[in-house]
Amino acid sequence: MYTLKKKEMNARLGEFKTPHGVIKLPGFMNVATCGAIKGGVSALDLKNLKCQVELCNTYHMHLRPGDEVVKNLGGIRKFTSWDGPVLTDSGGFQVFSLAKLRNIHEEGVEFSSHIDGRKIFMSPETSMQIQSNLASTIAMAFDECISNPAEYSYTKNSCDRTARWLVRCKKKLDELNSLENTINKKQMLFGINQGSTFKDLRIEHMKKIRELDLNGYAIGGLAVGETAKEMYDIIETLEPYMPSDKPRYLMGVGTPRNILEAVARGVDLMDCVMPSRNARHGKLFTWEGPINILNAKYEQDSLPIDSNCDCPTCQYHSRAYVRHLLKSGEMLGMRLTVIHNLYFYNTLMEKIRASLEEGNFERFYNKYKNIL
Amino acid sequence: MYTLKKKEMNARLGEFKTPHGVIKLPGFMNVATCGAIKGGVSALDLKNLKCQVELCNTYHMHLRPGDEVVKNLGGIRKFTSWDGPVLTDSGGFQVFSLAKLRNIHEEGVEFSSHIDGRKIFMSPETSMQIQSNLASTIAMAFDECISNPAEYSYTKNSCDRTARWLVRCKKKLDELNSLENTINKKQMLFGINQGSTFKDLRIEHMKKIRELDLNGYAIGGLAVGETAKEMYDIIETLEPYMPSDKPRYLMGVGTPRNILEAVARGVDLMDCVMPSRNARHGKLFTWEGPINILNAKYEQDSLPIDSNCDCPTCQYHSRAYVRHLLKSGEMLGMRLTVIHNLYFYNTLMEKIRASLEEGNFERFYNKYKNIL
Repeated sequence: MYTLKKKEMNARLGEFKTPHGVIKLPGFMNVATCGAIKGGVSALDLKNLKCQVELCNTYHMHLRPGDEVVKNLGGIRKFTSWDGPVLTDSGGFQVFSLAKLRNIHEEGVEFSSHIDGRKIFMSPETSMQIQSNLASTIAMAFDECISNPAEYSYTKNSCDRTARWLVRCKKKLDELNSLENTINKKQMLFGINQGSTFKDLRIEHMKKIRELDLNGYAIGGLAVGETAKEMYDIIETLEPYMPSDKPRYLMGVGTPRNILEAVARGVDLMDCVMPSRNARHGKLFTWEGPINILNAKYEQDSLPIDSNCDCPTCQYHSRAYVRHLLKSGEMLGMRLTVIHNLYFYNTLMEKIRASLEEGNFERFYNKYKNIL
Repeated sequence: MYTLKKKEMNARLGEFKTPHGVIKLPGFMNVATCGAIKGGVSALDLKNLKCQVELCNTYHMHLRPGDEVVKNLGGIRKFTSWDGPVLTDSGGFQVFSLAKLRNIHEEGVEFSSHIDGRKIFMSPETSMQIQSNLASTIAMAFDECISNPAEYSYTKNSCDRTARWLVRCKKKLDELNSLENTINKKQMLFGINQGSTFKDLRIEHMKKIRELDLNGYAIGGLAVGETAKEMYDIIETLEPYMPSDKPRYLMGVGTPRNILEAVARGVDLMDCVMPSRNARHGKLFTWEGPINILNAKYEQDSLPIDSNCDCPTCQYHSRAYVRHLLKSGEMLGMRLTVIHNLYFYNTLMEKIRASLEEGNFERFYNKYKNIL
């Protein structure tokens, strides 16, 4: 499924064939938590923003509108009118970050919905069932995501359990993929590496999970409290242990700089809410570094956000107009800025791929690592 | 400027030539209060929604970002990237509905900004100055908009003052249009008829304001507390007194039924926040009557909002998806519903014009007056 085309430093130019289309790597997934990009951006808009993969959240879709509703409507791709690949996370991250009163044990996790407090149980099997109902292209294994810093012994036990959960995930998804009324019978599964910032636990866990022949491997539990240096160290430590013939996904990362550094260390896929979240606060990415559009100096600025950007926002709208909309609390301000930031991220990935294709990734890396 | 092409009942098929393009009448203006349609809809989106005229609010633009800022950026059309005609209201309605601590006298109105409480003075002259800075296609006269029910003697005095204000508006706008650095030197002026629900005052006021050779005449002070029947009565009463060679604009109206009834009584132009406001609450217009998309029966409904609608929302998205987005508080839900409702209104006007063209407006009127 994964084809490595070129390599420079540890950066990998590759292609990942999925049942719903080819993903060019390195790539960035655009986050549509509840089946929609924050800021009023639709799946059809994403087509104009160079988006390759939509990421939807299992936890959110399970609570509302319910995964069975989505299944009845033909799955998440039909529901959101997105015809490309979709990755669903396992719900694990949200269970551990959003849900209340959780109780974790071998079988799974009991928790209360953050919407209405309703008691919910989620296990490797229920997570796979939900993701199968959503019929995403790629399902993520159900894991425990530990915040950093963490205790060594807790982390070790948790990693062991996450590894056991992965075996159950694979078994369950194989079963579901063989059922007659499953929408996507070729649903793929990615395992998730954990281990906090403990290198020995990270390596041990990676060795364990790579034994299962999965479609890809993710590094989870980073960008959750540790420093950027610690994060890069973990990626470097893990890289030699990650299968080279499978895509590698760094979860929830990050700034453009983080992305460039991760790619240089061998990561293929990333996702983050940063482009949309920052946009809403006026923090916009440009090829000369980030700017804050709410700054008074942009009040009468008739230039686009970035003169080197050809996104739909920069083609038609001025900094002054975008600033006015955000200051006035107009939704259009959020939409235009989210469109710009997502386009920036997706274009960054495109430029990274082009530089790898042309054999000058290292030059690109050195030029942009201090600008971005 | 105005050409009457056909007439049926009192409905008028016409064209209005403006410096920024021809407006086909009857027509509905799409409200972009702060220079943006609520719900994250841009001027470029409006092009796909059959919108002919954008309406912006003088009061809001004066407070934020400031009309001089807009002037420096080339005027409201350049600022919002809308290349068609723009009508700006005079600020009068907002001064009397939104602003606090107002003090009205012959010279003008003192009031406090609803944003920061700052003291502001607005008069016929300042309103014209602001609208000239905004450089809209059509400026509206500065008037006092009285809520219904109103007292006769207050209304009479207010109408007299509004008539005196109109003379000052015309004088000031003529001056501004002759200045070298005015952006739109052909800015048009519409007068506004007032008089609450008192027919004699309405007629007297209309007779007075039609003496000034303005580009169009509006009926103001309706849809502000009176019944629909009272509103229709006033339109019928005024119709014979409104110049037949000028466009007639009914301000702030209304439901699709209101619009149909007003057109049948000789009105050419309307505006209302209803399509966008209703959309946000799930109230959507269809050719079989309004529906509430939040209703549980739409939870798993894979049909579009209206199977007879070819708006961008209905082309790609299901009722179930739109409902899910609104229930989840996703901005995309508002965007998709506002797009649908605006398209519905603009299509209604298109259908009205087509029925007039084909000589079957009365049949159209009778068919739809009880459905809409």
